[in-house]
Amino acid sequence: MTHDVKRVYLFGNGQAEGKADMKNLLGGKGANLAEMNRIGVPVPAGFTITTETSIEYTELGKDKLTALLRNEVKDAITHTENIMGSRFGDRKNPLLVSVRSGARVSMPGMMDTVLNLGLNDDVVMGMIEKTGNPRFVWDSYRRFVQMYGSVVLELKPENKEDIDPFEAIIEQVKEEKNVEDDLDLTAKDLEELVKRFKAAVKEKTGHSFPTDPWEQLWGAVYAVFDSWNNPRANVYRRLNGIPGAWGTAVNVQAMVYGNMGDNCATGVAFTRDAGTGENIFNGEFLVNAQGEDVVAGTRTPQQITLEGARRWARLAEIDEEERKVSFPSLEELMPEIYRELDATQHKLENHYKDMQDIEFTIQDGKLWLLQTRTGKRTGAAMIKIAMDMLSENFIDKETALMRCEPAKLDELLHPVFDPAGLAQAKVLAKGLPASPGAATGKIVFFADEAETMVAANSDERVILVRIETSPEDLAGMHAARGILTARGGMTSHAAVVARGMGKCCISGAGKIKIDYRARLMVIDGVTYKEGDWLSLNGSTGEVLDGQVPTRDPELSGDFGRLMDLCDRFSEMRVRTNADTPNDSLVARNFGAQGIGLCRTEHMFFEGERIKAVREMILAESEADRRKALDKLLPMQRTDFEGIFEAMDGLPVTIRLLDPPLHEFVPHEPENQAEMAREMGIEPAQVKELVDSLDEVNPMLGHRGCRLGNTYPEITEMQARAIIEAALNVKKRGIDVQPEIMVPLIGTPEEYKMQEKIIRATAAKVFEERGGTVDYLVGTMIEIPRAALVADLVAEEAEFFSFGTNDLTQMTFGFSRDDIGKFLPIYLDKGLLKHDPFQVLDQQGVGQLVEMATRKGRVARPDLKVGICGEHGGEPTSVKFCHKVGMNYVSCSPYRVPIARLAAAQAAVEQRK
Amino acid sequence: MTHDVKRVYLFGNGQAEGKADMKNLLGGKGANLAEMNRIGVPVPAGFTITTETSIEYTELGKDKLTALLRNEVKDAITHTENIMGSRFGDRKNPLLVSVRSGARVSMPGMMDTVLNLGLNDDVVMGMIEKTGNPRFVWDSYRRFVQMYGSVVLELKPENKEDIDPFEAIIEQVKEEKNVEDDLDLTAKDLEELVKRFKAAVKEKTGHSFPTDPWEQLWGAVYAVFDSWNNPRANVYRRLNGIPGAWGTAVNVQAMVYGNMGDNCATGVAFTRDAGTGENIFNGEFLVNAQGEDVVAGTRTPQQITLEGARRWARLAEIDEEERKVSFPSLEELMPEIYRELDATQHKLENHYKDMQDIEFTIQDGKLWLLQTRTGKRTGAAMIKIAMDMLSENFIDKETALMRCEPAKLDELLHPVFDPAGLAQAKVLAKGLPASPGAATGKIVFFADEAETMVAANSDERVILVRIETSPEDLAGMHAARGILTARGGMTSHAAVVARGMGKCCISGAGKIKIDYRARLMVIDGVTYKEGDWLSLNGSTGEVLDGQVPTRDPELSGDFGRLMDLCDRFSEMRVRTNADTPNDSLVARNFGAQGIGLCRTEHMFFEGERIKAVREMILAESEADRRKALDKLLPMQRTDFEGIFEAMDGLPVTIRLLDPPLHEFVPHEPENQAEMAREMGIEPAQVKELVDSLDEVNPMLGHRGCRLGNTYPEITEMQARAIIEAALNVKKRGIDVQPEIMVPLIGTPEEYKMQEKIIRATAAKVFEERGGTVDYLVGTMIEIPRAALVADLVAEEAEFFSFGTNDLTQMTFGFSRDDIGKFLPIYLDKGLLKHDPFQVLDQQGVGQLVEMATRKGRVARPDLKVGICGEHGGEPTSVKFCHKVGMNYVSCSPYRVPIARLAAAQAAVEQRK
Repeated sequence: MTHDVKRVYLFGNGQAEGKADMKNLLGGKGANLAEMNRIGVPVPAGFTITTETSIEYTELGKDKLTALLRNEVKDAITHTENIMGSRFGDRKNPLLVSVRSGARVSMPGMMDTVLNLGLNDDVVMGMIEKTGNPRFVWDSYRRFVQMYGSVVLELKPENKEDIDPFEAIIEQVKEEKNVEDDLDLTAKDLEELVKRFKAAVKEKTGHSFPTDPWEQLWGAVYAVFDSWNNPRANVYRRLNGIPGAWGTAVNVQAMVYGNMGDNCATGVAFTRDAGTGENIFNGEFLVNAQGEDVVAGTRTPQQITLEGARRWARLAEIDEEERKVSFPSLEELMPEIYRELDATQHKLENHYKDMQDIEFTIQDGKLWLLQTRTGKRTGAAMIKIAMDMLSENFIDKETALMRCEPAKLDELLHPVFDPAGLAQAKVLAKGLPASPGAATGKIVFFADEAETMVAANSDERVILVRIETSPEDLAGMHAARGILTARGGMTSHAAVVARGMGKCCISGAGKIKIDYRARLMVIDGVTYKEGDWLSLNGSTGEVLDGQVPTRDPELSGDFGRLMDLCDRFSEMRVRTNADTPNDSLVARNFGAQGIGLCRTEHMFFEGERIKAVREMILAESEADRRKALDKLLPMQRTDFEGIFEAMDGLPVTIRLLDPPLHEFVPHEPENQAEMAREMGIEPAQVKELVDSLDEVNPMLGHRGCRLGNTYPEITEMQARAIIEAALNVKKRGIDVQPEIMVPLIGTPEEYKMQEKIIRATAAKVFEERGGTVDYLVGTMIEIPRAALVADLVAEEAEFFSFGTNDLTQMTFGFSRDDIGKFLPIYLDKGLLKHDPFQVLDQQGVGQLVEMATRKGRVARPDLKVGICGEHGGEPTSVKFCHKVGMNYVSCSPYRVPIARLAAAQAAVEQRK
Repeated sequence: MTHDVKRVYLFGNGQAEGKADMKNLLGGKGANLAEMNRIGVPVPAGFTITTETSIEYTELGKDKLTALLRNEVKDAITHTENIMGSRFGDRKNPLLVSVRSGARVSMPGMMDTVLNLGLNDDVVMGMIEKTGNPRFVWDSYRRFVQMYGSVVLELKPENKEDIDPFEAIIEQVKEEKNVEDDLDLTAKDLEELVKRFKAAVKEKTGHSFPTDPWEQLWGAVYAVFDSWNNPRANVYRRLNGIPGAWGTAVNVQAMVYGNMGDNCATGVAFTRDAGTGENIFNGEFLVNAQGEDVVAGTRTPQQITLEGARRWARLAEIDEEERKVSFPSLEELMPEIYRELDATQHKLENHYKDMQDIEFTIQDGKLWLLQTRTGKRTGAAMIKIAMDMLSENFIDKETALMRCEPAKLDELLHPVFDPAGLAQAKVLAKGLPASPGAATGKIVFFADEAETMVAANSDERVILVRIETSPEDLAGMHAARGILTARGGMTSHAAVVARGMGKCCISGAGKIKIDYRARLMVIDGVTYKEGDWLSLNGSTGEVLDGQVPTRDPELSGDFGRLMDLCDRFSEMRVRTNADTPNDSLVARNFGAQGIGLCRTEHMFFEGERIKAVREMILAESEADRRKALDKLLPMQRTDFEGIFEAMDGLPVTIRLLDPPLHEFVPHEPENQAEMAREMGIEPAQVKELVDSLDEVNPMLGHRGCRLGNTYPEITEMQARAIIEAALNVKKRGIDVQPEIMVPLIGTPEEYKMQEKIIRATAAKVFEERGGTVDYLVGTMIEIPRAALVADLVAEEAEFFSFGTNDLTQMTFGFSRDDIGKFLPIYLDKGLLKHDPFQVLDQQGVGQLVEMATRKGRVARPDLKVGICGEHGGEPTSVKFCHKVGMNYVSCSPYRVPIARLAAAQAAVEQRK
């Protein structure tokens, strides 16, 4: 069988065995290298080892796989040699190659790369003879040894505060030679570096650095395969939901050099602005450098376009004259090459119909494209690019809609700095506006600590401050509110990753001096310690002192266009979970078409109310309980009136009292004493009460309709407050549509008893007031049993609303409060793909949701069905709700636009 | 519509409109009165108002119903008058009637009865003239006024320690007249009683006692209807699962009198012995008395048969000569009547093919049957009668099997007194062996207190001691271990009810003097207070001092025959839940065919083991944990060896560690200090550990396979202990069939990970030992999600065992530990029919059980399926398991025979 498998795909010279739609097999990079060849973009020749081979490797191991793979790789190297006119390991005319990873989807910087492979002491001599540029050759060699040493031979810093062992040697030599910049090192110095690097390898590994190019090649190929399972790649995959079984391809490609002299350069560019989405070609390059220098952010890169260069200079506060001299654009420096590059970027965007992120190298005045891929972008850019391309008739409506990732809308929905607060804020430094947004948090210098702090307290806000970031920092960047780096450009690691995450980022704020050991940074002589507050304006690049106040974002323009588009396709409505008139208005602004969940208990905690609530709980007879409830009635009525007004013309689902009563009484002795004083009773009585309410498993205790069925007078009071409020606002001309929702039913009988109380109360109020109002009575479906008997429940209930938080708890037997003990392990071991409280479990919980909807509609074909758990704002869950045939989803106000987009996409996907 | 409904059914003179199979409409008594007429048994004429009418009454109320019912009742009275040759309210020849309740099933003493209805001052005079027996007439009148006053006009004691207001008047008059016995009151005295009774009625109600017979009749009919919903009837219905919607019939029947003189008598009889099941006609009677006198136990009744009388005298330690004089049998006293009665009882048992409980009255030398019904009996009698009737070819095998109520077997499975202990016990008094069994408990004098004590602590053992019991005492009798009364015979209230409950009872222990106010009793001058220990031997009637030791019962004879019969019909196997070799042996003796659930965690608490368990929990690394587990390994292995040996040749399902770890650590400060000392660590460390293990909802926390998947070394240790133990006992010639069970899975992945560990460990042990043993790996299905994905689970799992305790908790969202807050209210309000933790909820939880079985068998047709929750021993749940197609049920050792019978009945029912 395995003899027939093709593991290696060739490309080069305008031809390729692969193509763009073979991403699953060749990885994104490999498929695009093939495709670029096919459309006539200049690409160095090479080959791709398939993703399936990397999975084979984990099963078979190195030796068995090498036996299977050897001949194909040999042939592929010959193919590359033939096109490039050089030979692997040849002293006179050597073929050097890069070895890079390439998964189905881009995982920037997560996996390993080796460049300049094929060099050894012998080849070096030949190359020097051939190029007459010993410095370039020794520099390439020292880069290769350093990279191979780190990636394949694993010479790495042992502690996070330690410097890289190779960098340590470089610093040592620089000190000895008394030079500051790497560029000031001579060919001789670089030769010395190579010698010391090799010695370090020998000392550390016990083996000499490998001189056989083939040995080097196999080492690099397996190192790339191995890097698929390194910790940072695992973290990235978990954060982005990428299955481990996909594997990575390996791309082996002839090297071209941007560092052979001043007619050489290397760069990274975007066909549109990845931060704002503007249709502006932009990017950065470095003369006489290798690609990694641009991304690493160790030298300040130059802009590709003149316009971009001028804008950059303004932000960096560099005089135009100085800029021309020190940071000329590629457009100015190499106008011919620039024109070719510009034409190529147009060709690529036209071909792929999406914004491209490209890598190029100029070797001896010839342009080579090394990579093209769909560019990562911020949420704002995502929307603008989609809407622009739609306007440009570049893509159709459905494509524009599907291009927008619902979860990324989140970035646009978070608060922005309040202009007044911003005007007063003190600007400490300026960097590049690498990823827009507003962030405020405490300074943290190490990524793992940022992660730990936020894990311990999810409300903790931190700003990760680094000289530069690296792939290891990924989880910490995710945890931080914003990222600030002292070095690096708009295409540095920090910038690219932050934009992908939609996280506010300022890069290259050179004024900032960071001392990791002392855990502090200095700006203009002022020291800022770990834990000090800092604010970042990612849209301007301004680093601000302390905490700057924020306000809600305004959503219009392209965002509004996208939302209109959504509503044209969507078949579900999107409601919101809101308990106050203010929340209701926020959600309405975000396009909410009603309230799907108004939790009445939140109202019980405000001000004097809690006292009346506690009187109710303390009551020893129904009469006493009614007295306390009479006090609550007018307060609840007023609440409902405000919400009904805010939701004029839209339905409002009000859930009756749900939590167990012990949530309303104090559990600490001092608070119990206070309550005793307030209520005029003995502290011991309060303690006794609290103890009597205590439950072993409160989640499964005396709550929800179990309260309303044991104390019917509570339901009566709430039903009365709702109906009276509805009549009051109706009189004022408001179109009021109350839907009264019974929580936590498990049997039809429980629902029927509550419904009877509600309808009897409403009838009584109508009679008293001499008026009526239309209202619905329905129920939460949040207990597995309720889903199982949904047909019987729907005989009486007019609507269902899935409370998927509790339904998930009970279907899995997971307590949300306790799952932290094993969830991380479960996710790590692959026992769960997602946290089921974030992403609806379609396989299990989804069965109950589907079953209840189906059974419910059998009994009552026009049954209104919705969801009001937190899943109602999670895109994959929203799509599932569409599939099940729900009438609406309901989510928190800030997730309403996300749900609208997800609902529209679900409808589009179904049509296809 | 309502005009067409027939509400009244007539009977009398060998003819009847109703018949035996109309119990639902006419109630048990009404249907049997009709049937007795049809088969030629002498029954006073009368009529039955249907059960449906009582339900109509609750809907329509008194006035509307009377309008609908009036004509039919009038016609029925005329019918009765015509047959009996007397007229209602007629002074010269009055018809007097009894008005009695009669539900579908017998609810002895739960509802109200009025006798002698139709009497008034005028009729009394006429009757005296006619009978020439003023004492009898005045006695009848005072009984009527007393009964009507109590039942219809509600003159009742206000506090439980108070005496009945009518009894108070009787005592007063007796004191005034200086007589001791009621029989010593003269006609004049009785007339005085009537006068005072009427005055009491007038004072209490403000109205004169009704003199119009029709007014009396309607009052009594509605009082009987109302009594369907009195508190004691509600309690009885709840305990016996009788729906409130059944309602009660009302039987109105011409009075016949056992108290018109010495050629009159009244009695109660059983066609076989209701306590032992022996085929002996037996019963009691009183000369010159009304039926209530026999049941109430106020006079010591005489035996019907000579043989019975002799036996009774032996027990009562009465000399044969004295017996002949003071307590002659009916057989001796009225031999003709006796022969007629004996022939009638044979006729009835032959007709109904079951043991009958009959009531009769002898008026002026003529025998009248007032009632026949299937007699209540003890569990032992139930089995003996069924097996005897089978031997007699009276009934077939299926009928014999179906006659036995599984739950009643429970009575036979409880411990009996140890003969050695019994020999040494001090006999305080002797009463009648009213209901067999052994009981030990603390003396309690009030039924409600017995109920409260046991509700507070289900392990509390109490003996209810009363002068005599009444229907109000029902719940307290249910709560008590045994019942002792100072008065009453074998057919007294206490005796009949206790036998129905299968509860040990001694009645009529006349030596005992009870003082309710002082809460003590005196026997032979020695005082026994509330709370003192007492033992009852219900089989001999001996009241024993203190706590007498007990031992397990022996099951053979008829019990064994019944069990053999079960196994011939049953299609399911019955296993047991047992954690020790001893429990396993007990269960095997009861016929268990394997262990369905062996809980390994119970073994963790014994002796030194808990220390190793705590070391494991304290361990901060896997290595430390393994060290502690290594200590546990040999202990677990030894446990398993013992169980395997006890279960030689039968399968043993062992569940891996299930409870959360915090169950193994102490929660009280003093115990924490002790653990700290033992472990050689600081108390603060112990506290920190305990706090870190604390969970908000432990039921849904870090337990079950979540432990084994986060700490795989625990599963490894347990799998090793099981497999090593199996190999060890196999070497000794034991046929060992281990089944390893993974608890609490919710996803197929969780199961697969555990299974992998188990199989890998087993393979390793086999290799080490150079031997193998067959074993199965399977899983509990106790989480709703596991049922939903059962098809995927069954791809790997070899068996399913439903853990219906947890499955019920999660499907309902009920915490077993907290449900007490609302379950009683839910049962009262009819929101739940049963406690779902006792009776499997077929409508909801059952759907998941059925679904999982079906899905599981689709994936694996030979999947072995069982149940190991507590429902596995509950008869209706066992029948459900049969319907679903399970291979076995598993229950606690003492419930094994119950499950065997239920399983057999399920198979028989399905064939029909």
